[in-house]
Amino acid sequence: MDGDRLVLIDQRRLPDQLVEYSCASAGEVAQAIQDMVIRGAPAMGQAAALGLALTAHAMRDNTPFIRRATLRGGATALVNARPTAANVRWAVDRLMARFDELGDPPDDGHAVADVLRQEADTIVFEAAADHERLAHFGLDLLPEMADRPLQVLTHCNTGPLACGQFGTALGIVQVALHVGRPIEVFVDETRPYLQGSRLTAWELAQAGVPYTVLADSAAGWLMARGDVDAVLVGADRIAANGDTANKIGTYPLAVLAARHGVPFYVCAPLSSVDLATPDGSAIQIEQRAGEEVTALRGIPIAPAGSRALNPAFDATPAELITAIVTEEGALRSPFEIGLRGAFDASRARKAHPPAYAGFVGDEATSHAGAV
Amino acid sequence: MDGDRLVLIDQRRLPDQLVEYSCASAGEVAQAIQDMVIRGAPAMGQAAALGLALTAHAMRDNTPFIRRATLRGGATALVNARPTAANVRWAVDRLMARFDELGDPPDDGHAVADVLRQEADTIVFEAAADHERLAHFGLDLLPEMADRPLQVLTHCNTGPLACGQFGTALGIVQVALHVGRPIEVFVDETRPYLQGSRLTAWELAQAGVPYTVLADSAAGWLMARGDVDAVLVGADRIAANGDTANKIGTYPLAVLAARHGVPFYVCAPLSSVDLATPDGSAIQIEQRAGEEVTALRGIPIAPAGSRALNPAFDATPAELITAIVTEEGALRSPFEIGLRGAFDASRARKAHPPAYAGFVGDEATSHAGAV
Repeated sequence: MDGDRLVLIDQRRLPDQLVEYSCASAGEVAQAIQDMVIRGAPAMGQAAALGLALTAHAMRDNTPFIRRATLRGGATALVNARPTAANVRWAVDRLMARFDELGDPPDDGHAVADVLRQEADTIVFEAAADHERLAHFGLDLLPEMADRPLQVLTHCNTGPLACGQFGTALGIVQVALHVGRPIEVFVDETRPYLQGSRLTAWELAQAGVPYTVLADSAAGWLMARGDVDAVLVGADRIAANGDTANKIGTYPLAVLAARHGVPFYVCAPLSSVDLATPDGSAIQIEQRAGEEVTALRGIPIAPAGSRALNPAFDATPAELITAIVTEEGALRSPFEIGLRGAFDASRARKAHPPAYAGFVGDEATSHAGAV
Repeated sequence: MDGDRLVLIDQRRLPDQLVEYSCASAGEVAQAIQDMVIRGAPAMGQAAALGLALTAHAMRDNTPFIRRATLRGGATALVNARPTAANVRWAVDRLMARFDELGDPPDDGHAVADVLRQEADTIVFEAAADHERLAHFGLDLLPEMADRPLQVLTHCNTGPLACGQFGTALGIVQVALHVGRPIEVFVDETRPYLQGSRLTAWELAQAGVPYTVLADSAAGWLMARGDVDAVLVGADRIAANGDTANKIGTYPLAVLAARHGVPFYVCAPLSSVDLATPDGSAIQIEQRAGEEVTALRGIPIAPAGSRALNPAFDATPAELITAIVTEEGALRSPFEIGLRGAFDASRARKAHPPAYAGFVGDEATSHAGAV
């Protein structure tokens, strides 16, 4: 990001090519989200914030009313681009609250641009710190195996591509690697968009973590063999009761994990939690184009004219989730209480700078709702 | 099939192209099975029988010892080509038993060729009749919806391509269509080989049955919406206790169906049942090349060098199976008793010709184990 544009990795081109994709406004970021240039709820939240800051920068010498209308239009486009992901609305709301504080509408376009850029940068910096805290809390949950590496199964992509500088579920894997705990990752390919085999495998290969790709439908066989010690997934939206929307295929994994007594951990920052969403039934599931199922890289893999369903997400009921791992600790059922406690802890922690200096200090381990 | 060769549809080329593939011996049929030219347990059983008959024909003027050695070598190659599928061994054993009845080794190569061809033809003809009986029994299990078509979910491919002239699970759909019962099919794409989106969708499109393709991992979401009235799958091997090996991804469907109270029907002829296999743990699961997961039609979809697991089948425990639908009726738990009763009923029925004239006559509906 410089003053005029946000440069993203075009995730559609991975792992074949590392190509940059440039956005100059909130509207362009919204389009990039819709086109899957960027995905992953935390990363989209950060990109949305930076997109609004770019729009504020571009509009800094315009009239206050036009500036406000343009920013609000950009905010709406962003929220609608991936409605299932809580982080986008969370980031947009955070920036627009700062904007609204400055006037009705604020006169000084340069001040607006500065404040929104500052808030967006804060979101990005906080995310890096929060995700590292989350990763340490997650690692604390995982057993150490006496005679073999820990074997975790993951779905979709939750590494830096999805989250910014760090990862959520994959952040835990990275921390395990850094502290020298042997770990191996089974990677669901994650049809139809193959975020697992394309993105997670690419990140793990770069990080030097041993991994094995498998078809999503093979996870049941793998658990039945006893080869999965834990399932680690991310979240696009966590409801107040703990029900979690995540990439399609997460729910079947949770059902299988429960059957096989495998712990199932949802790993997500509080920016993915929406206390205004009471439960999973209230989460809007984005339906994407059927062609993502019936063709792959432009090659048809079903008869011409085939109808296809392509829900991008599913909802996993809280009862199937062993713990929700956040930057304020690992929360267990009843999640409603734990999640509210975690928000309180987060507010208290961030009210006392240095907010993101000591990543996993003692002060972070004792608060309501965490285990 | 003429005297010298068996002509198969090359299922690897569907749905793009309808290409023939010719085999002249048991060894060539074994290779075709290994290369996925032909798949589907019942179809492979029939092709294996015809392959042995072709070898007997080719060897008819050779010496008895060389003929026997060649036939036994072909039989072994066939059984090893898809070890999970019971039907291949069943058909091979049936032909080799006829061969062994003719002498030690039999002298008259022309008589051997005639007898094996006759036995192979009987297997093919019986299969068509048995699958139609099965389909009627299956349809009897399915409810009629007052105000909408019945909605079934299927996995992999169980139509004529998999079974010969008729189908098993898809045979039920065909019979529903023929008797005018509205039905819609949700088709799991069935990674990694896409038998669902490539083959089942193609067959349903040809038959004029409304269908919708979905990623395998979306089946949980679909059941949670209440959109699945029944799951219909085939089988590669059914153990004596009812545990069933079928295409990878079948087991997760069964677990999800149980959770959502959706009936889960395994639809397979008795030639897929192996009473010598006590339970699912004794079923050998074929492991295929990882490249089937990491590349699609030669295009890499994972980073170069990615390791992949590719189990071709999984085992579904009997406790998750609502009924096993056979040509002798729909069997319910305890399957051990039902399956033995069905074999008795089959022997009794086939001992009294016309064995395959009245497809679903009264005589077929009353026997031990059937409901």
